[in-house]
Amino acid sequence: MEKRVAVLQGDGIGPEVTSAAVRILEVVARRFNHTFHFDYGSIGGEAIDSFNDPLPKETIELCESSDAVLLGAVGGPKWDRNPSELRPEKGLLAIRKHFDLFANLRPVKAVPSLLQASPLKEEIVREVDMMIVRELTGGIYFGLPSRKTATAAVDTLVYTREEIERIVEKAFELARMRRGKVTSVDKANVLESSKLWREVVEEKRQRYPDVEVEHQLVDSAAMKLITNPKAFDVVVTENMFGDILSDEASVITGSLGLMPSASVRSDGFGLYEPVHGSAPDVAGMGIANPAAAILSAAMMLRYSFGMDTEAAAIEKAVDTVFEDGHFTADLAGSTDRALSTTEWTDKVIGELD
Amino acid sequence: MEKRVAVLQGDGIGPEVTSAAVRILEVVARRFNHTFHFDYGSIGGEAIDSFNDPLPKETIELCESSDAVLLGAVGGPKWDRNPSELRPEKGLLAIRKHFDLFANLRPVKAVPSLLQASPLKEEIVREVDMMIVRELTGGIYFGLPSRKTATAAVDTLVYTREEIERIVEKAFELARMRRGKVTSVDKANVLESSKLWREVVEEKRQRYPDVEVEHQLVDSAAMKLITNPKAFDVVVTENMFGDILSDEASVITGSLGLMPSASVRSDGFGLYEPVHGSAPDVAGMGIANPAAAILSAAMMLRYSFGMDTEAAAIEKAVDTVFEDGHFTADLAGSTDRALSTTEWTDKVIGELD
Ligand SMILES: CC(C)[C@H](C(=O)O)[C@@H](O)C(=O)O
Ligand SMILES: CC(C)[C@H](C(=O)O)[C@@H](O)C(=O)O
Repeated sequence: MEKRVAVLQGDGIGPEVTSAAVRILEVVARRFNHTFHFDYGSIGGEAIDSFNDPLPKETIELCESSDAVLLGAVGGPKWDRNPSELRPEKGLLAIRKHFDLFANLRPVKAVPSLLQASPLKEEIVREVDMMIVRELTGGIYFGLPSRKTATAAVDTLVYTREEIERIVEKAFELARMRRGKVTSVDKANVLESSKLWREVVEEKRQRYPDVEVEHQLVDSAAMKLITNPKAFDVVVTENMFGDILSDEASVITGSLGLMPSASVRSDGFGLYEPVHGSAPDVAGMGIANPAAAILSAAMMLRYSFGMDTEAAAIEKAVDTVFEDGHFTADLAGSTDRALSTTEWTDKVIGELD
Repeated sequence: MEKRVAVLQGDGIGPEVTSAAVRILEVVARRFNHTFHFDYGSIGGEAIDSFNDPLPKETIELCESSDAVLLGAVGGPKWDRNPSELRPEKGLLAIRKHFDLFANLRPVKAVPSLLQASPLKEEIVREVDMMIVRELTGGIYFGLPSRKTATAAVDTLVYTREEIERIVEKAFELARMRRGKVTSVDKANVLESSKLWREVVEEKRQRYPDVEVEHQLVDSAAMKLITNPKAFDVVVTENMFGDILSDEASVITGSLGLMPSASVRSDGFGLYEPVHGSAPDVAGMGIANPAAAILSAAMMLRYSFGMDTEAAAIEKAVDTVFEDGHFTADLAGSTDRALSTTEWTDKVIGELD
């Protein structure tokens, strides 16, 4: 197959980790006989510097003519005092909305060789394997009015039935390919939008009788992610709850540095990015952990290009490198055992080739 | 001193644990020469059964003529299918709003003898000692419009400057009596209400130069509560974020069963209740853990009656009973070592008397 990938490296360690991911994709292309074209565009802080716009129209056009987007990370202290429209994260919010990337998928999986880095007891995190499905283009992130005066401020949480339907369907489809369980998280004892959410889940489940469904209030989900994370398979929730719960979930296994994410719509187009941020403190030092970017590239192969075998090959290679005890500085514990970004990527390529 | 306490036992284990707390308060009254009058009222499911109203006007009147309210818990499967206006938790929301109990205080403190019950590694939770200050009468819980049609639903997150000011001041005052640090949690990169929130915190801090201030986004706060909970002293946040984060925080020490809470306003009047729910599965069995209700009574003495010495005496007695290895079934591990609710309360009384 021939595919065009827009690469938006962004800020901080973004360029280093996306470069590593591109190297991996090149190896995959060679081994599995594909052609990937990589075209580079600006987003976030560097786009503000060059275009005075966190999501320049050049970038939008580039992505429109691509099959998928690979993103590094955005943000850094340089832009922290900028007015709200000139902040790096506006680029992220804008690209999600522009391309209608309504489904944010975040797998959270315990890696046996890294469990000692988890803040949780090993018996609690061992075997954790869940997929958080966060609605990404609706809710209080985009509802109007959203405004502030000197004496008051208002934000609006709004969902249409269609917006809920498509994300809930996505969750059911994913559950079918996994362990067949959906946990829908809402605050139906307080919010009207959550009541509609729960109604839609109850309707949709009729079409997926093979999938087990459970409703959970967001406060109790926040507890259970810590006390019994193994109980979750697919978790589906609205935008803001998803923001909070997916970040909470991302630290329980101790491997935030290697968590990938996908933001997709129904036709297969998607944006893939590591969950970790731009880590300005280690940017340019060549020590960043590229695992999350590499695993994001694997998700791209699976969800945008339908290349399951290729995706699995990358994931297996990454697993093996960890099992063999190769780590970048963030995970190595003591730096003398730590590999650089490039050295670690070489190990993965060694497994893949 | 002479004080009137409205006791709203509520549902499930509510009656058992509030009875234990009342026994403790009676011992305190005797030992410290106070007179407490206890008057009983209905709330939640039992109030729905008797009055067809989760917060009957009789209960409101009772509370209005009292100096503080001691509450057990509300809710249970019996009322789960009720229409929204006849659900037990509506009683809770209504009493908070009616009495303008805008500040919900939730201490989270590691108990050395219970750390083995924590899902987190001991070195992470040992020495955790924070106070979560949640805004309780504003935000998306009460904002209008809040409505649902067949095709869409909307909720409104609204805050006035005054509402933010009073809760932020409360947090600064509490920080002064503790370790002098306030972490304000918001989502200022997305929400206008959070921008106003952050503005108010920045203004107020001028008046508290001795207090260290830190802003944290809600998603990263959700992570840090797990990776480094010791870093928090006072955490202040809006209603919905507070709901999620305080429940998340409540499980990290492994002692959800003994977490108290206070919901207060500026004049000292307040409502005190355990964080745990009504636990219908063990209701009426005499095995419920009364520690949270007893510690809530201690908070009542401190925050509503200004009885610091008396509050500290209760807290010390509870600590000692745990240190001596006395536990109710929820914490005992194996039931043959477990004390009943009454037996465990007797131990606390033994320490107090
Ligand atoms: C940067 C921010 C606007 C964004 C969000 O809240 O969605 C981030 O936290 C994320 O989860 O991708
Ligand atoms: C029962 C529910 C409405 C309530 C809330 O969300 O405030 C509860 O979760 C709490 O935290 O006291």
